Amino acid sequence: MDKILRVNMSTGKTTTEPVPAPYAALGGRGLTSQVLLDEVPPDCEPLGPFNKLILAPGLLSGTSAPSSGRMSAGAKSPLTGGIKESNAGGIASQKIANLGYKAIIIEGKPAAGEQYLLKLTPGGVELLPAGDLAGKGGYETVALLKQRYGEKVGVVFVGPAGEMLMAGAGIGNNDPEGHAGRYAGRGGLGAVMGSKGLKAIVIDAPRTFDVPVKDKERFKTAAKKFADILHAHPVTGQALPAYGTNVLMNIINEAGTLPTRNFRRGRFDQANDVGGEKLAEACTARGGKATHACHPGCVMRCSNIFILPDGRSLGSLEYETAWGFGPNLEIADLDVIGELNYVCNDAGLDTIEAGCTLGVLMEAGVIPFGDGKAAVEALKEVGKGTPLGRIIGAGATFAGKVYGVTRIPSVKGQGIPAYDPRSCRGNGVTYATTPMGADHTAGYAVTANILKVGGDVCPITDEGQIELSRNLQIATAAVDATGLCLFVAFAVLDNPEGLPMIIEMLNAMYGLSLTADDVMALGRHILHTEKEFNTGAGFAKADDRLPEFFYNEELEPHQTRFALRDELDQVINF
Amino acid sequence: MDKILRVNMSTGKTTTEPVPAPYAALGGRGLTSQVLLDEVPPDCEPLGPFNKLILAPGLLSGTSAPSSGRMSAGAKSPLTGGIKESNAGGIASQKIANLGYKAIIIEGKPAAGEQYLLKLTPGGVELLPAGDLAGKGGYETVALLKQRYGEKVGVVFVGPAGEMLMAGAGIGNNDPEGHAGRYAGRGGLGAVMGSKGLKAIVIDAPRTFDVPVKDKERFKTAAKKFADILHAHPVTGQALPAYGTNVLMNIINEAGTLPTRNFRRGRFDQANDVGGEKLAEACTARGGKATHACHPGCVMRCSNIFILPDGRSLGSLEYETAWGFGPNLEIADLDVIGELNYVCNDAGLDTIEAGCTLGVLMEAGVIPFGDGKAAVEALKEVGKGTPLGRIIGAGATFAGKVYGVTRIPSVKGQGIPAYDPRSCRGNGVTYATTPMGADHTAGYAVTANILKVGGDVCPITDEGQIELSRNLQIATAAVDATGLCLFVAFAVLDNPEGLPMIIEMLNAMYGLSLTADDVMALGRHILHTEKEFNTGAGFAKADDRLPEFFYNEELEPHQTRFALRDELDQVINF
Repeated sequence: MDKILRVNMSTGKTTTEPVPAPYAALGGRGLTSQVLLDEVPPDCEPLGPFNKLILAPGLLSGTSAPSSGRMSAGAKSPLTGGIKESNAGGIASQKIANLGYKAIIIEGKPAAGEQYLLKLTPGGVELLPAGDLAGKGGYETVALLKQRYGEKVGVVFVGPAGEMLMAGAGIGNNDPEGHAGRYAGRGGLGAVMGSKGLKAIVIDAPRTFDVPVKDKERFKTAAKKFADILHAHPVTGQALPAYGTNVLMNIINEAGTLPTRNFRRGRFDQANDVGGEKLAEACTARGGKATHACHPGCVMRCSNIFILPDGRSLGSLEYETAWGFGPNLEIADLDVIGELNYVCNDAGLDTIEAGCTLGVLMEAGVIPFGDGKAAVEALKEVGKGTPLGRIIGAGATFAGKVYGVTRIPSVKGQGIPAYDPRSCRGNGVTYATTPMGADHTAGYAVTANILKVGGDVCPITDEGQIELSRNLQIATAAVDATGLCLFVAFAVLDNPEGLPMIIEMLNAMYGLSLTADDVMALGRHILHTEKEFNTGAGFAKADDRLPEFFYNEELEPHQTRFALRDELDQVINF
Repeated sequence: MDKILRVNMSTGKTTTEPVPAPYAALGGRGLTSQVLLDEVPPDCEPLGPFNKLILAPGLLSGTSAPSSGRMSAGAKSPLTGGIKESNAGGIASQKIANLGYKAIIIEGKPAAGEQYLLKLTPGGVELLPAGDLAGKGGYETVALLKQRYGEKVGVVFVGPAGEMLMAGAGIGNNDPEGHAGRYAGRGGLGAVMGSKGLKAIVIDAPRTFDVPVKDKERFKTAAKKFADILHAHPVTGQALPAYGTNVLMNIINEAGTLPTRNFRRGRFDQANDVGGEKLAEACTARGGKATHACHPGCVMRCSNIFILPDGRSLGSLEYETAWGFGPNLEIADLDVIGELNYVCNDAGLDTIEAGCTLGVLMEAGVIPFGDGKAAVEALKEVGKGTPLGRIIGAGATFAGKVYGVTRIPSVKGQGIPAYDPRSCRGNGVTYATTPMGADHTAGYAVTANILKVGGDVCPITDEGQIELSRNLQIATAAVDATGLCLFVAFAVLDNPEGLPMIIEMLNAMYGLSLTADDVMALGRHILHTEKEFNTGAGFAKADDRLPEFFYNEELEPHQTRFALRDELDQVINF
């Protein structure tokens, strides 16, 4: 990973540049956020020519480091108006890394209506006209490009939602079987890619794990030990491989923090019908897979393959999606949830944002709660670009504003995910304060609040939540720079040998002598970078708060309200 | 005006309170903004129970002071998310003042779907159920309530847009003939009134000019002199009475600062077809009126009565409306513009915001530029509450976000009015920096930039614009506290006897000894109050900028771009 690819969509020119020295120690989110601060005016129009889209594998991506295949996408977000990084599994990241690219920077803007395809091979880079792909869904886009360029190519793409510049659009890439379902979904980055006229990036790379490593033996030993640590932990070694992320459904419901009926209650009495255990059964029964790796070399294998009743293969159905279209809408049917997921993957829409948006439209009375058929029909409007489809595609906040809804579950314009902040208050702190807009992955306090991993912090009192979220946000920013899947944190938080082994891999790969302090310093640096961008974009203290109703409505079953306000200003204050 | 009426919509209770001492010297915008800062949490949900709607006549309203019948409405805005004051002519203000109310504070929130009518008479206050008025248009609402409560009542109302909580909804009141067309239109205050379940306020007051005045003779003399000053100035004494506000159309077009085709050009070759001279002809030809007073005692009489081809009487057609639906959309037909205006008045929608919104939808290709029929059809969707109607009703910014438009002419979420900021840069400074969101009335630099009233500042250079806007913003805040129509400023800026005469009226009325410095201090205090609220609501420096395209696209015919950025932070910095 010794070069950066710059693609100017105004001129069609592509240039390959050496990696500037200050970027050498950055990867993934660390790199996308730094490039944004360095090159993009924070107050620019997110869908205009001055915004840039940056794709970056992590520091360890493209090696044999276990579960290191995350790809970071970064840009100024059309959803939040602030800095955004969203990362995804799938096979693209390892291929980009193995072609030697530390980052791809997409900049400028072509004439209206022009669509392009970026093709990366060991032989070089081509920017090709792609008008023939305009309007095509995610599944068809991936299938066509695999047919055209080879079964094993990685495809980074946007669906019609991204092409139509919808603020809820994500950037997808394919899993090893070609499902168009691994999304850097959050923050509307698909609309940024759409605004650049870039329909897809095809990556044809013969290698997967061969990014240069300075000390191969030392690296191999560390990677093996790290895999052992992941295998040995009950979450990463047993629960996730057996039931996938949706193992959380019954756990979070039992904890009373499963947002139900647009965050009106913390429990859904039919949660089990849409939980991980039932999902694993359904996957197996229809000839899918209950466990599956979203990219080569993942040892946690938390992905699955869900087959819809008519035989279409969805790809993986994740917990956040099952929640957003399930309890959040009072829908208790996995097939309906799977269909909604399929429509999102095809249109190119973030499922969390779409779930929150449908919840808001149900709040507004546009669709009845619990009506799966109406929800599917409404969501299908997105791909057609009708006024209702546009509203849905624009995300929960804009949809809520259009309908005058006062109970919009979002922070900085981004929908709140599957843990109610009132009874998982550490997550509430993260939602409010992360520069990313409401994001569970930015500081996943479910660990100590609910799962009792890496500590035990009572989820319904305020004590310790600020520190918990702060520490997790710092650690997460660092992990997001490595390309490791965040789920390694379950094991790393509990096993004192986990973090040293990540550092050992980094040191062996780059010939460095990093310490744990250096890694935490990197995390802090990334958060500072992002906060600085957001300040320039106009964010203020009032943007680091939860919506009013979380402070004023009691949540069943624990009868608890969120109460932290001014204390939130202490989270990213170091 | 010795009492404040407080209406709690949660409980249905109304209370009459004495005026607290610190509020005695405040009126209109000065009072609405102060009550908001004192009683409303700046970070509250604008359509929730913690926001309050305040109606306040000005300090001179309800007396014989010429042109003093403005009513201020204030609330946290659902359109901008910040503090908002919007004021209107019409007959309500004088009636409220003559019943002795210095302000009406509407607070709390009733159960969903409940609608009420507030009735004010010399005998007291009643809050009555008004479910029978739900969904009724502005014209019908006023007609029904006049029929029910008497020909001479004042009616403050919201249309279906306000009831449906649309962020572009205004608060209307009637002119002396009963047209439902005098709007405190800006900032979505109609949605706040709608969120309170308040369909209308009927004010039955036998008197118009009899608010107590301490020194009646002194007051009468000053008022007479002030009227003479207004009569003597060419703008307030000749141009406005002859052609109304739309006299500006040809002047602003000639100046090359008439926003055309969603702010793509500064001139419209058919401007004359929709200008004041043609409008006056059309008003007279169909039996309307070319000149007319929107409230008793106005000496400028800049209003008109425009009759639509089928005989419906619109009420007054103003310059900003003629621009928003005319040049802005490349529509050159006064009858089409009149129809669009009628639809807005009936739905209860701000015409400036609606004009900007239709411009944005034309930019997005939803409606073709210049297609009046399609524009009328689209606008009629507002009252029906369809998805497209909701989008239009939500205003230019939300509509633009839903359609991924990058050329949205708005600041702080509010649409930019009828003077392009690139070639009327003093107005650009005002749009960017007023706490109100883009608002020409907050610091109307057209005076010195174009009309050469009160000075001569070149409109297409940056020199002097900061000071010009700052001084106008301070003076305007003070004028908005008096209840005087802002148009008195044309005369006051040119005639050194103007301001002393306003002060003389205030001193005679209240037994004070105010000086010009005191009045300017009041203006500064109001701006500080508003800025403090907005800081609490999350506004930052980046919110005091114009949209990107004004900095990057040259405007014909002067080939000029807006360039002021950091200097803008010096405007309200005293």
